[in-house]
Amino acid sequence: MKIKSLVTGGAGFIGSHVAKHCLDMGHEVIILDDLSGGFEDHIPAGAVFVQGSVTDEALVSELFATYRFDYVYHLAAYAAEGLSHFIRRFNYNNNLIGSINLINESVKHKVKCFTFTSSIAVYGAGQLPMREDMIPTPEDPYGVSKYAVELDLKAAHEMFGLNYVVFRPHNVYGENQNIGDKYRNVIGIFMNQIMQGQSLTIFGDGEQTRAFSYIDDVAIPIAKSVVTPAAYNQVFNIGADKPYTVNELAKVVGACFNVTPQINYLQARNEVMHAYSDHTKAHAVFGEGSGITLDEGIRKMAAWAKEVGARKSKEFDNIEIYEKLPQGWEKKPETAAATV
Amino acid sequence: MKIKSLVTGGAGFIGSHVAKHCLDMGHEVIILDDLSGGFEDHIPAGAVFVQGSVTDEALVSELFATYRFDYVYHLAAYAAEGLSHFIRRFNYNNNLIGSINLINESVKHKVKCFTFTSSIAVYGAGQLPMREDMIPTPEDPYGVSKYAVELDLKAAHEMFGLNYVVFRPHNVYGENQNIGDKYRNVIGIFMNQIMQGQSLTIFGDGEQTRAFSYIDDVAIPIAKSVVTPAAYNQVFNIGADKPYTVNELAKVVGACFNVTPQINYLQARNEVMHAYSDHTKAHAVFGEGSGITLDEGIRKMAAWAKEVGARKSKEFDNIEIYEKLPQGWEKKPETAAATV
Repeated sequence: MKIKSLVTGGAGFIGSHVAKHCLDMGHEVIILDDLSGGFEDHIPAGAVFVQGSVTDEALVSELFATYRFDYVYHLAAYAAEGLSHFIRRFNYNNNLIGSINLINESVKHKVKCFTFTSSIAVYGAGQLPMREDMIPTPEDPYGVSKYAVELDLKAAHEMFGLNYVVFRPHNVYGENQNIGDKYRNVIGIFMNQIMQGQSLTIFGDGEQTRAFSYIDDVAIPIAKSVVTPAAYNQVFNIGADKPYTVNELAKVVGACFNVTPQINYLQARNEVMHAYSDHTKAHAVFGEGSGITLDEGIRKMAAWAKEVGARKSKEFDNIEIYEKLPQGWEKKPETAAATV
Repeated sequence: MKIKSLVTGGAGFIGSHVAKHCLDMGHEVIILDDLSGGFEDHIPAGAVFVQGSVTDEALVSELFATYRFDYVYHLAAYAAEGLSHFIRRFNYNNNLIGSINLINESVKHKVKCFTFTSSIAVYGAGQLPMREDMIPTPEDPYGVSKYAVELDLKAAHEMFGLNYVVFRPHNVYGENQNIGDKYRNVIGIFMNQIMQGQSLTIFGDGEQTRAFSYIDDVAIPIAKSVVTPAAYNQVFNIGADKPYTVNELAKVVGACFNVTPQINYLQARNEVMHAYSDHTKAHAVFGEGSGITLDEGIRKMAAWAKEVGARKSKEFDNIEIYEKLPQGWEKKPETAAATV
C-alpha cells in the first residue's frame, strides 16, 4: 500500500513544492488548501485536492478518518508577519487553532510523523546568527503563534509519542510564490512592481538584511524529513547562509528584468533589522543544500514570473486594528466614513 | 466620574476576590463570566454582572463600546492544567483566543492598564525557585496558551503602547474556590472528598511539593496592580514561599475537619514534581503579603466550605483525546460504544 501524506497549504508556495517532492518519493498526496494564498494551478499533477481550511475541525477530522495518513506536512498558514499585529485574532485562529486541529487528529490516528513549518519569527530580535539551541522569545503575534505550535508539538510528543519535525525557514523565494501578495515576500513584491512599471517600495532605508533562500533548499529537506528518523522530534533552521540588504536585492531583481529600479522608501515598519540563521544542524542531517546563489535563484524565479505575468494584489479584508497600520497597507472598510 | 473596570472571570474564585477589592477601591466593576467554573452567588454586591464568554467577540466588543473601561482584569480561563493535554482546542480557544479578543478591544479603546493572570505553568520543569528573569518553556497546552498571551501583551505594548501587568500565581486556595471541580485545585478536591466521606485521591506518591497560596496574597496585588505604575509592563510571581508535599497537605486539611484521611494513591500524572517561586520582585513592588500560614488559611477556607457544603463534581463534556487520560477522569461519550 502506498504511503499516504497530507500536505496542508499544498496549493501555496512552499507547500506545492513539498507536495511535488512527496509525489516523486512515491507517496499518495492529499492537499488541503483554502486557496486564500495559493492557486489551483500550483497543485502538482497526481495529488488529490481538497479545498478547505485547517480551521474547519469537521473537515479535518473527516479527512483523517478517510485517508488514515502516515505523514502530515503542515504548511498552511497566513504568514504575513508584519501584518499580524493588526489581525491578531485571525492570526491565532488560522495559525494556531488550525494547527491544533491537525495535532489532535494526528494523535488520535497515530500519524508516524508530523512535519511543521515554523519560522525564524519565533526567535525575536536576539543574538545573531539564530541557533536552534537558543530559547525563542517571539515579538509579534505571527511568531507567537508559530512558537506556540512548536511547544504544543513537543508536549504532544512527550504525552502521546507523536513524532514531529519543526523547520524554521526564512525569506524563501522561487517559482510558485504569490507575487500578488502586497503584505509579504519582498522578492515577489519587487517582481510584481517591475512588471507593472511601478517603482519598488521599501520600508525604511533598505539597509535591513535577510538571507534570501531559494525554494529547493527549503522544500527538499521538508519533504525528506518524515523518512529521516535522525530528524525526529527536533527543530531545524533551514535556508541560505549569506545575508543581503534589501537595497542589494533590489539591484539583483532589477538586473533580471533589465531595469534599473526606482525605489520608493516608505516609513520603517516594526521589524527586526537583521536576521540570519546558523544551519549547521540541518546540514549535518539533511546535507549541504543546492549551493544555488541569489543571482541564479532570482533568475529562475524571474523566468517563471515573466511567464505567469503580473498579478493584481489582493487586499486583506479583515483588518482588526487600524492604528499604526503601515503606510501602503491601509484600506478602511467601505463603511468606515458612515460608521465613525 | 468613577473608574470603570472589567473583571473577566469575576464569578470565579480569584476573580470574585479581585472584583471585591476593586469595589473597595471605588471602581465601577463590570463582571464578564460564563459561569462555566464560577457561581453567581460569588459575585460581590455592587458589581454589574454580564453572563457570557470572552470568546464571544461581538459581546466583548459591545461591552468595551458601552463601558469604555479604564482597566481590564483578565482572569477568565479554564485552568485545568493536567486536563489541557486532552482538550487542546478548547484550551487554546478559551484561554488564548478569548484573551486576544480582550487585547484587541483594549488597544482600540486605549485601556490604561490590562492586568493578566497567567500561571507558573509557563515555566515548565526547569530550575527552582522559578524567577521572572528565566525564559519560560511551558510543557503543556495550558502553559503554552498562558505564555502566548504574555508574549502577545508584550507585543501589543511595544506596538500600541498598551500597558499590562502579568501575574504568575500558583496553587491558590481560599473561600469561593470551586471545590466541585475534580480536575484541579487539590485543596478543594480534598475538602469535597472529606465532606462526602470519601478517601482522598492523590496522583502519584504524594511527595510532589507545591507552595499553596492563600487567596489574599494573590488577589490583593492583582487588584492594586492597575494603580501601581511601578508594576506596569512587568511580570510578577505571586503567592506563598514555603512548599509542602501533597501528603502533608492532606494531613492539614484532615485536621481542619477532625478526620484522619484515608488516601487513595492513583497513577502519577504527567506533571512537574516540585514547583515553587521566588517572590522577591513582587514583594519589592507590592509589599510582603499577609504572612498567613497554611494552617490558618486552610482553617478559614474549611470554615467557608463547611457552610457552603459539598458540591457534586461537574464532568467536562468535551474531551478531545481519550488516550492516556488519567484514571478517574474518564467519561466516554454515551455514544462511544455505538460509534467505535
